[in-house]
Amino acid sequence: MNANPATPLLDEVPTPEDLRKLKPAQLRQLADELRAEMISAVGQTGGHLGSGLGVVELTIAIHYVFDTPADRLIWDVGHQAYPHKILTGRRDRIRTLRQGGGLSGFTKRSESEYDPFGTAHSSTSISAALGFAVANKIKGAPGRGIAVIGDGAMSAGMAYEAMNNAREAGNRLVVILNDNDMSIAPPVGGLSAYLARLVSSGQFLGLRELARKFARRLPRPLHVAAKKTDEFARGMAMGGTLFEELGFYYVGPIDGHDLDALVPVLENVRDAGVGPILVHVVTQKGKGYAPAENAADKYHGVQKFDVITGEQAKAPAGPPSYTGVFAKALTAEAERDPAICAITAAMPSGTGLDKFAAQFPERSFDVGIAEQHAVTFAAGLAAQGMRPFCAIYSTFLQRAFDQVVHDVAIQNLPVRFAIDRAGLVGADGATHAGSFDVTYLATLPNMVVMAAADEAELVHMVHTAALYDAGPIAFRYPRGNGTGVEMPQVPEALEIGRGRIVREGTKVAILSLGTRLSEALKAADQLDARGLSTTVADLRFVKPLDTDLIRRLMLSHEIVVTVEEGSIGGLGAHVLTMASDEGLTDAGLRIRTMRLPDVFQDHDKPEAQYDEAGLNAPQIVDTVLKALRHNSAGVNEARA
Amino acid sequence: MNANPATPLLDEVPTPEDLRKLKPAQLRQLADELRAEMISAVGQTGGHLGSGLGVVELTIAIHYVFDTPADRLIWDVGHQAYPHKILTGRRDRIRTLRQGGGLSGFTKRSESEYDPFGTAHSSTSISAALGFAVANKIKGAPGRGIAVIGDGAMSAGMAYEAMNNAREAGNRLVVILNDNDMSIAPPVGGLSAYLARLVSSGQFLGLRELARKFARRLPRPLHVAAKKTDEFARGMAMGGTLFEELGFYYVGPIDGHDLDALVPVLENVRDAGVGPILVHVVTQKGKGYAPAENAADKYHGVQKFDVITGEQAKAPAGPPSYTGVFAKALTAEAERDPAICAITAAMPSGTGLDKFAAQFPERSFDVGIAEQHAVTFAAGLAAQGMRPFCAIYSTFLQRAFDQVVHDVAIQNLPVRFAIDRAGLVGADGATHAGSFDVTYLATLPNMVVMAAADEAELVHMVHTAALYDAGPIAFRYPRGNGTGVEMPQVPEALEIGRGRIVREGTKVAILSLGTRLSEALKAADQLDARGLSTTVADLRFVKPLDTDLIRRLMLSHEIVVTVEEGSIGGLGAHVLTMASDEGLTDAGLRIRTMRLPDVFQDHDKPEAQYDEAGLNAPQIVDTVLKALRHNSAGVNEARA
Repeated sequence: MNANPATPLLDEVPTPEDLRKLKPAQLRQLADELRAEMISAVGQTGGHLGSGLGVVELTIAIHYVFDTPADRLIWDVGHQAYPHKILTGRRDRIRTLRQGGGLSGFTKRSESEYDPFGTAHSSTSISAALGFAVANKIKGAPGRGIAVIGDGAMSAGMAYEAMNNAREAGNRLVVILNDNDMSIAPPVGGLSAYLARLVSSGQFLGLRELARKFARRLPRPLHVAAKKTDEFARGMAMGGTLFEELGFYYVGPIDGHDLDALVPVLENVRDAGVGPILVHVVTQKGKGYAPAENAADKYHGVQKFDVITGEQAKAPAGPPSYTGVFAKALTAEAERDPAICAITAAMPSGTGLDKFAAQFPERSFDVGIAEQHAVTFAAGLAAQGMRPFCAIYSTFLQRAFDQVVHDVAIQNLPVRFAIDRAGLVGADGATHAGSFDVTYLATLPNMVVMAAADEAELVHMVHTAALYDAGPIAFRYPRGNGTGVEMPQVPEALEIGRGRIVREGTKVAILSLGTRLSEALKAADQLDARGLSTTVADLRFVKPLDTDLIRRLMLSHEIVVTVEEGSIGGLGAHVLTMASDEGLTDAGLRIRTMRLPDVFQDHDKPEAQYDEAGLNAPQIVDTVLKALRHNSAGVNEARA
Repeated sequence: MNANPATPLLDEVPTPEDLRKLKPAQLRQLADELRAEMISAVGQTGGHLGSGLGVVELTIAIHYVFDTPADRLIWDVGHQAYPHKILTGRRDRIRTLRQGGGLSGFTKRSESEYDPFGTAHSSTSISAALGFAVANKIKGAPGRGIAVIGDGAMSAGMAYEAMNNAREAGNRLVVILNDNDMSIAPPVGGLSAYLARLVSSGQFLGLRELARKFARRLPRPLHVAAKKTDEFARGMAMGGTLFEELGFYYVGPIDGHDLDALVPVLENVRDAGVGPILVHVVTQKGKGYAPAENAADKYHGVQKFDVITGEQAKAPAGPPSYTGVFAKALTAEAERDPAICAITAAMPSGTGLDKFAAQFPERSFDVGIAEQHAVTFAAGLAAQGMRPFCAIYSTFLQRAFDQVVHDVAIQNLPVRFAIDRAGLVGADGATHAGSFDVTYLATLPNMVVMAAADEAELVHMVHTAALYDAGPIAFRYPRGNGTGVEMPQVPEALEIGRGRIVREGTKVAILSLGTRLSEALKAADQLDARGLSTTVADLRFVKPLDTDLIRRLMLSHEIVVTVEEGSIGGLGAHVLTMASDEGLTDAGLRIRTMRLPDVFQDHDKPEAQYDEAGLNAPQIVDTVLKALRHNSAGVNEARA
């Protein structure tokens, strides 16, 4: 166990109000203590480390200079907000981060008035900050919107849409571009190259000096006379044309670890009376903790670790991860078929495509945080005869829903969607859960939608998708490790729209889609033990549905239960719709659908989440027993 | 009836291959004839006119210079592609535009090899063009991707995401920015201001001369030596820094109606050997047709019209449009409540918010083609105590699905979604149909989802949404005119989750959501006439569902039929799920769900579309009769 560090100054600063009583000269010490405290906490909980380490000084400077919480501070993505949480009244709970019942790993409105807007998906902060700024403007209330956004997040379309509208907010909007040349993976694309030029061109070396010069030159407060405004613009804007073209005043680049620069520059920004202003701050991900600084991913997301050595707790050895199985299977397909290519939206390691890219760099595309572009780009590739796999987490594919509908499904183009992190995701919580993909994809004409019950099934589905040229096809699989099933020597091409019987019974039929299959099988054993002979089918496909199989099971069993890891509108809805279409409910059909509950579930251990969702074996058993006990005579009576 | 114009030269040019045999000096005459032909055709069919008129010369120049269809030409949005259709083998069908069975009003892959990618929603063209370019690069095949995109479409995030990735394609990508300072409405935001500066700054006056200078200066073909490449970059790039920062070579601005400039400049672009290149072309929407040039909206979308006078056929007088009713109702709410504000994504007149903005300019926001930003901006406004109405067409709200989930629903923020064009939309066809909103919204925890059965209901729903602060709430309503019901003097606050019985019966219960109510009532009359006493309920809410009402009707009627104008996963699925949850199917439940079919329906007259969808009164009657005849004994036999 790591000992908690000594933090005498930090102990005196539970809130930003206390922070603002310190002298500027004390801030350096505070930063050191805050960094130590954060390292210690994440060492105990695991979580996002590198991003938070990079913004320790920036966090202090913002709260020191601005009037939070009246000034609405929004941390884009929010996984860099651990120092912010420590400084805003949540230090006593910081060692509960990402644990069940503990602090969220992101910002969250219900946690603190200092979190005015929950974040987790990238690139929402400028839009939200604009909303706050404009609301206050309309109401004539004080308070600006402050967005802190990384260079990677700037590559997303919605950040650009918001920048394009920034002028609405005038001087009530401050955007702080936290440029660490690193989102989760190294950033890609034209914007990234542009920022690198801004930072590296001779003119911008000597950041400390430059920042001091800014701080000295600007009158404080700067009056809003037109002439002065022009001077301000010229004085601050020593680069950043792109942002200026969009209507911002550009300030920077500033050394984001130098409090002597950061504080006076932010004070000037605060008092300038012009806006919107974009402050370009250069930071180093993992700053101040050698193991993080030296790691390729800057300790982006870590397990619990030893603070002295930086050594992370090893996950127990076990079956391969679904992500790894997908990457390996896709690479094998690509060896066979030169038309196969792969696309990720800034998640090369999260999706496993880094491994694919190592072998097929010319057929691998990391488009940045740009899911919309990823999908339509894939549609273009498919229209020109390639076989693209779009590997996107379920929750992030929501960003590209219109592109899936308009560019892929309507045109019936054979884009393959590899949907990772489908279902509940544990410590990342509601914002990252993949709860809706089956519903929003299976409602679309032309789509084929599969879900893998285990890692062997995933291999078959990758193969099936690779061979399927008739239109779009999606397969979903969960976060984490496989079940340990034997892996196939040769992948199998699944028949489209055909499920499989995994276990034969006579009274109870469980129709499973995806990875709840193992719980369905456990439930079946328990039901058998009670004399209820149970069939378990793995439907594999929710669209097209295996109507023959389902009809047969409905007609031959006393009760049918569907089980899926998704929200209403998915498997259960499709099975019920088919049953009513065919009149199978007319004469009585004892059917229940088990699905995710109608709430956004908080972060917790996966087992606890499944239990809360009611999707474990005991709850399947309960559902069956309760349904069998259900007095349909009562219904008949009421009907009569 | 307008007479067809004389087009001797156009008659000789059925395809681009024929076009490329012409001498440059002949192109002017061709343009004049093409413009006359297009005006004549749209005069007969109605449709999009202004956009096509603006690109007559550009269309000719592109096909003249580039090797279509091997060079993949993608018209962003596609409603400006009528001249393109005339020139690419579809002239004989041009007078069937937007008619049932006729040509689509957009580009469409199934229509022509010259339409490599269907478009209709804005801002997809660069992503798709990149897909084509990169596919050819991988395959070592010839052919580049050419995207023609308007300045309005450039404000959308996905265009930026694509530009940020443009370097993938190198010299295989050409983006032609068609800058007419006008999308459907005047454009907004920083980018628009930037383009205006590029065009209007002294340096860029005299477009003709400038273009000729470009054409003269550049060696043809320009060799790809590094030094020459640099010269090319410097020579062409006389502005357009923003695009250069993102990695483009910028060429322009060019007068888009001057063929003597366009053709040689595009030839240089074609032969330059560097890229990606962005060609900034300045055009005038409605060009060459006085009534269009003089109209405020440049005849963006028109009814049939008289070519000589420009006078459009008047729609028959009738009930007010849903859009108009919404705008009026919202304005009334805003008079009462200063916290109400409204947001549109570049559709001020389409959503009726132009009328709202006239009265409340400071509470009205047109964010450009930026649905993602619109929703999260609204979430920020709501979090700061405003009551925002996001007025977005059903099909375009797909663009903001993740923002609805992540920024609104998870945070349970009271954003009001006014969902216009819900359901089938007639001549605009599959790409604009609002088929999925009920499914993708009602699957979300915290959401309230309503559908208006008529224009009076819409007024109540606007009022209900205005008063509802507990979380997000959405109401959908269709394209077109209301049903002519009496309008309420005072709007009513609907009880959340309560439907209403519209008509009492005893044997058949029709559960209707939204505007199929009138057909349900017609069907009820016909069923009554057959001795089948029919109840009709207007559920108003799909989430939360009126379980009390539905249960009661299920228990007291012989058959229940749901009717909705949406795809699978919506009302029918929610009703069936509730019924199975409660065990109401156990002892027999004769229930059928009527919904949109599992196909993307082509454009046609609305009545024909409803007929094809099977959602008119006769089909409701048929469904009931067939279900009542259904031999459930057969099911029981099979079961035994």
